[in-house]
Amino acid sequence: MKILLVNPNATASMTDKIAASARRVVGPGVEIVARTGEGSPASIEGHHDEAMSVPTLLRHVRAGEEQGVAGVVVACFDDPGIGACRELATGPVIGIAEAAMKAATMLATSFSVVTTLPRSVPVIEELARRYGVDHQCRKVRSASIPVLALEEEDSGAREKVRDEILRAIREDNCEAIVLGCAGMADLTDWLSRETGVPVIDGVTVAVKFVEGLAGIGLGTSKICAYAQPNQK
Amino acid sequence: MKILLVNPNATASMTDKIAASARRVVGPGVEIVARTGEGSPASIEGHHDEAMSVPTLLRHVRAGEEQGVAGVVVACFDDPGIGACRELATGPVIGIAEAAMKAATMLATSFSVVTTLPRSVPVIEELARRYGVDHQCRKVRSASIPVLALEEEDSGAREKVRDEILRAIREDNCEAIVLGCAGMADLTDWLSRETGVPVIDGVTVAVKFVEGLAGIGLGTSKICAYAQPNQK
Amino acid sequence: MKILLVNPNATASMTDKIAASARRVVGPGVEIVARTGEGSPASIEGHHDEAMSVPTLLRHVRAGEEQGVAGVVVACFDDPGIGACRELATGPVIGIAEAAMKAATMLATSFSVVTTLPRSVPVIEELARRYGVDHQCRKVRSASIPVLALEEEDSGAREKVRDEILRAIREDNCEAIVLGCAGMADLTDWLSRETGVPVIDGVTVAVKFVEGLAGIGLGTSKICAYAQPNQK
Amino acid sequence: MKILLVNPNATASMTDKIAASARRVVGPGVEIVARTGEGSPASIEGHHDEAMSVPTLLRHVRAGEEQGVAGVVVACFDDPGIGACRELATGPVIGIAEAAMKAATMLATSFSVVTTLPRSVPVIEELARRYGVDHQCRKVRSASIPVLALEEEDSGAREKVRDEILRAIREDNCEAIVLGCAGMADLTDWLSRETGVPVIDGVTVAVKFVEGLAGIGLGTSKICAYAQPNQK
Amino acid sequence: MKILLVNPNATASMTDKIAASARRVVGPGVEIVARTGEGSPASIEGHHDEAMSVPTLLRHVRAGEEQGVAGVVVACFDDPGIGACRELATGPVIGIAEAAMKAATMLATSFSVVTTLPRSVPVIEELARRYGVDHQCRKVRSASIPVLALEEEDSGAREKVRDEILRAIREDNCEAIVLGCAGMADLTDWLSRETGVPVIDGVTVAVKFVEGLAGIGLGTSKICAYAQPNQK
Amino acid sequence: MKILLVNPNATASMTDKIAASARRVVGPGVEIVARTGEGSPASIEGHHDEAMSVPTLLRHVRAGEEQGVAGVVVACFDDPGIGACRELATGPVIGIAEAAMKAATMLATSFSVVTTLPRSVPVIEELARRYGVDHQCRKVRSASIPVLALEEEDSGAREKVRDEILRAIREDNCEAIVLGCAGMADLTDWLSRETGVPVIDGVTVAVKFVEGLAGIGLGTSKICAYAQPNQK
Repeated sequence: MKILLVNPNATASMTDKIAASARRVVGPGVEIVARTGEGSPASIEGHHDEAMSVPTLLRHVRAGEEQGVAGVVVACFDDPGIGACRELATGPVIGIAEAAMKAATMLATSFSVVTTLPRSVPVIEELARRYGVDHQCRKVRSASIPVLALEEEDSGAREKVRDEILRAIREDNCEAIVLGCAGMADLTDWLSRETGVPVIDGVTVAVKFVEGLAGIGLGTSKICAYAQPNQK
Repeated sequence: MKILLVNPNATASMTDKIAASARRVVGPGVEIVARTGEGSPASIEGHHDEAMSVPTLLRHVRAGEEQGVAGVVVACFDDPGIGACRELATGPVIGIAEAAMKAATMLATSFSVVTTLPRSVPVIEELARRYGVDHQCRKVRSASIPVLALEEEDSGAREKVRDEILRAIREDNCEAIVLGCAGMADLTDWLSRETGVPVIDGVTVAVKFVEGLAGIGLGTSKICAYAQPNQK
Repeated sequence: MKILLVNPNATASMTDKIAASARRVVGPGVEIVARTGEGSPASIEGHHDEAMSVPTLLRHVRAGEEQGVAGVVVACFDDPGIGACRELATGPVIGIAEAAMKAATMLATSFSVVTTLPRSVPVIEELARRYGVDHQCRKVRSASIPVLALEEEDSGAREKVRDEILRAIREDNCEAIVLGCAGMADLTDWLSRETGVPVIDGVTVAVKFVEGLAGIGLGTSKICAYAQPNQK
Repeated sequence: MKILLVNPNATASMTDKIAASARRVVGPGVEIVARTGEGSPASIEGHHDEAMSVPTLLRHVRAGEEQGVAGVVVACFDDPGIGACRELATGPVIGIAEAAMKAATMLATSFSVVTTLPRSVPVIEELARRYGVDHQCRKVRSASIPVLALEEEDSGAREKVRDEILRAIREDNCEAIVLGCAGMADLTDWLSRETGVPVIDGVTVAVKFVEGLAGIGLGTSKICAYAQPNQK
Repeated sequence: MKILLVNPNATASMTDKIAASARRVVGPGVEIVARTGEGSPASIEGHHDEAMSVPTLLRHVRAGEEQGVAGVVVACFDDPGIGACRELATGPVIGIAEAAMKAATMLATSFSVVTTLPRSVPVIEELARRYGVDHQCRKVRSASIPVLALEEEDSGAREKVRDEILRAIREDNCEAIVLGCAGMADLTDWLSRETGVPVIDGVTVAVKFVEGLAGIGLGTSKICAYAQPNQK
Repeated sequence: MKILLVNPNATASMTDKIAASARRVVGPGVEIVARTGEGSPASIEGHHDEAMSVPTLLRHVRAGEEQGVAGVVVACFDDPGIGACRELATGPVIGIAEAAMKAATMLATSFSVVTTLPRSVPVIEELARRYGVDHQCRKVRSASIPVLALEEEDSGAREKVRDEILRAIREDNCEAIVLGCAGMADLTDWLSRETGVPVIDGVTVAVKFVEGLAGIGLGTSKICAYAQPNQK
């Protein structure tokens, strides 16, 4: 089984990091086909970046379908272009925000999200509401770091994320933490150990959900909203 | 005052029709700058078409800003790319679905939407929920016509829209009708007369809301979510 | 086009101030017919005052209809008697809370309201929920000033409002401010400059919304809830 | 213990009927002080009638306080002026819609409401949402009868109410019926027998809730929203 | 009229305390049949304890039915097994959380809950949402005391509850307090006096609601969800 | 990795069927430990049966923990005792309703549920609301068959389920079907072929979700609500 894993931004090092996380968790016989959003913004910070990343993302999904991938993971916490990807795909398509937030509700009665920049906070709050988990999402917090700082060894970004998680535990009365950026995938284990709470990374969860759903033969419904795009 | 009116799809005849509707209602001294989504899908039918239309839409918004437009109307009932447009714009940016549905709640306790294809129904239902008017939206209905049938004189499309409105009145217990496609803008008066209910077209409402808000000096907040896109 | 602007309380100086704000923003040929709630409470502070102001408000609406007004603005942030006014009116009827809060959601992802007295906070919170914008309303705050202090030059009221706005910006993570009292209409520009955030006054927004909707021929639906009162 | 029972409309025969229902259910030592909305509309059919009935209702509440009533029941299913009454009262104030709908949720997982005229349907739907029981309210139905037809022996009104209840049972999948008009109070037993479902009349429920809450020493909170009206 | 009052936990001293509270408020001729959850956990602290207490609770309800009780009060603030009890009962069955929270919304625009242990907070938050009062519940707070500390004279528990109420008043902007544990029933009057806010104890409210509803002939609907358990 | 799969009812043939479904889909090295609710009701039809099945369910979970299971699936569509199980477990605990309904929202914009008896409909509606998917759940339908009819070859039960699915497709405008009973697990493939829509069985989905979450090291949060039961 091949699973297409698209990092919608243009930063290949982030794709590598995400793909490595994914490969560590998939079952035997599952191949991760990792793609980068070449020509898209270097990071997805807000609605504009998100919108500009979707055409390339869709190109990768179309190509993946031709290769016969079993499902798709969109590895950006804004869940860009999910509906459009679902129209193109036959297998399941899952964004990492949806995966992580719904997983959190299976493991805890409430969670907080820690993301990168303040401008992503309202975007994620709206996703929480769209996915029907807003009553379980205590707070969406930002560590006030640009996405790409997560790629730099000495930026202090990981410590800022850890400190924001510790603040969430103290102030939010939350039972789990959702990491609000694909670029934090490699920090998950360290953050769990440092903070003592379940830390949920959407990349690995989404990959396992796609693997699981595709494995039992479930794919995207083609009946109405997610039917193939109309020919004109 | 210039108002940028973008038809996100590639069909110029639809732009002309929409622009004519808009020009009929603006106040003295207001100029409608109408733009078409060249290279975008010929009609927006679902998430994929919507996503593919946004880059050109954003190009028009950026150009409009350079020309000093006072605000922007996005004339497609899926409200594509609104958040991204708001990041680029200084004046108000309003999509026709948000305008029409919020106007409906100022004029009636409930409304139904009549759109073109069934696949747009879930898209519009989600918009109604996002805008907080789902408890006042009785039903989203489709007249089962492709968007472009509205451009053909003899397609029978307008009669189908009228018949669906009459069904909504009979079955939904609604007090107003929202037209669920920019391409219906020229039918508004005829449909009102034929059906006897208030029929709300988002294009004219959105244009007047932008004109009104810009006229009193209000623009898009630049504080957090809708700040200019970050430079990387 | 005549627009009826009713200040539901008995304080004529407030009516003058509100009418002046309205007249500054209307288009050419639009006449503001301003009315005061003679015999009603001097200010609307809570449910009781609100209820007692409605009969005179309705008398003004009935008189306005006879004069052929195109629409009605109710200039009190509790939105008193809106449903009853809509039954009497043919044109649009908009309260300033509904106008300001819905406008805020077109310009920002979230807002806070700053009103006068603490007792108005739950009233406004319920309005936000009724209008479906509670998920975008960060907090309703009071500046702890009586409404009529806004009419006194040296009461320090305007400074208290400004300080509460600054607190909202610091603490609420909001992107815009809605002024929660008609009596603050004249402070809008000053508060915007002092605080650096978009400050939304419902009086001017409501007037432009009524002007816009009436201008394109839309009025209150007469089909069910807002039909003329039944004769007995 | 005295309980003030106000029929907000001007029809004394309806007050008598309601008071008789109330007196049948109160405990020993409880006196029902029944009042009519003299000068108010003869029936409350919509927002306008409701608004016009409140000043007299408030006068009765003020007088009741002077007489030392232990609590207040407002016997109109639109729950007019409840917030204003609560500001004036020290004991509990309960409207019959709130009482009946909340009681229904203690006895069944869902209910439908049967009211008089179609124009009251959206009013009651909004009350259900305000009271947080909209997810348990299957449907608000009207029997298409004017309120005062309930006062006429030969109007066929009671049969129409019964038939609408039977339709609700067949079509709504509801487990209980709430009577949506105070004027139906005397039909409760007959309707229960005729239809075989629990039929809930708000008058008796509200009276028992007021009696119960006042009996254990609970009254309206005077802390913020329901404090006595401000002196100016 | 007999009312069955079940304390679902195994602590008989708590049953005695609760029964005493109930007996003080019932009308003449009402007998409180008090039962303890023998063999169940000594206190209900979380989902596990709650689940383990239900079989004995149901046995008491079944026995009560045989004795002809008119209704049932379940005296634990987690409202354990309410649906199951309703299937067995003919009269009304009310849990103390539902009773107290719904009563609070009849007396105030908002309330906070003060419970015992932090682990009960999410349980009560979910109840508030299920009962549709989450928009009126400012905060669920814990006094950080085990349930059984309320049974010990010198545990300092009552002072901790009082202090938490005072914190709620200062920080939550709430207008009433709901006591989040049956074991606090005897503190109600003292807490009211000490804090100056309406303090609502679910035991007495639930008893009066059951007495009132049963008194007017209302019982649990037997139509669908709450029909007697199916024989297999 | 061992996954504990508990059928909460007492019908061993149903356990076998469910376990067979589960074993078909798990990855290499995953062992399904299947348990039956000995002494519990033969089928779970309503709140009473559900409550009576939980103590044995919890005993199996406790035993599973001692055996070191990696996670737990509760195979009854009422999701009985999930919170209590989560307190006892270290790994993930997922009920089949939560799994199936959340999976449905990853594959379609809307779904309908087809369950067995009408009395389960309100139970499932409440679960949908608790899980935040009520806005995507078009309708919960019953095929009007007792649960155990699914165990009898000639009961016609499977045809009734199929017919109800076909009705859902025609009438509900849904894009996927969720099977509302664990006993339908073996019908999934046949129902998909017969109806042409994605048919989602919670047993297999829940097993894969538990396998996936446990596989990446995620378990139930032990911080607050789901901490181990308190010792007294």
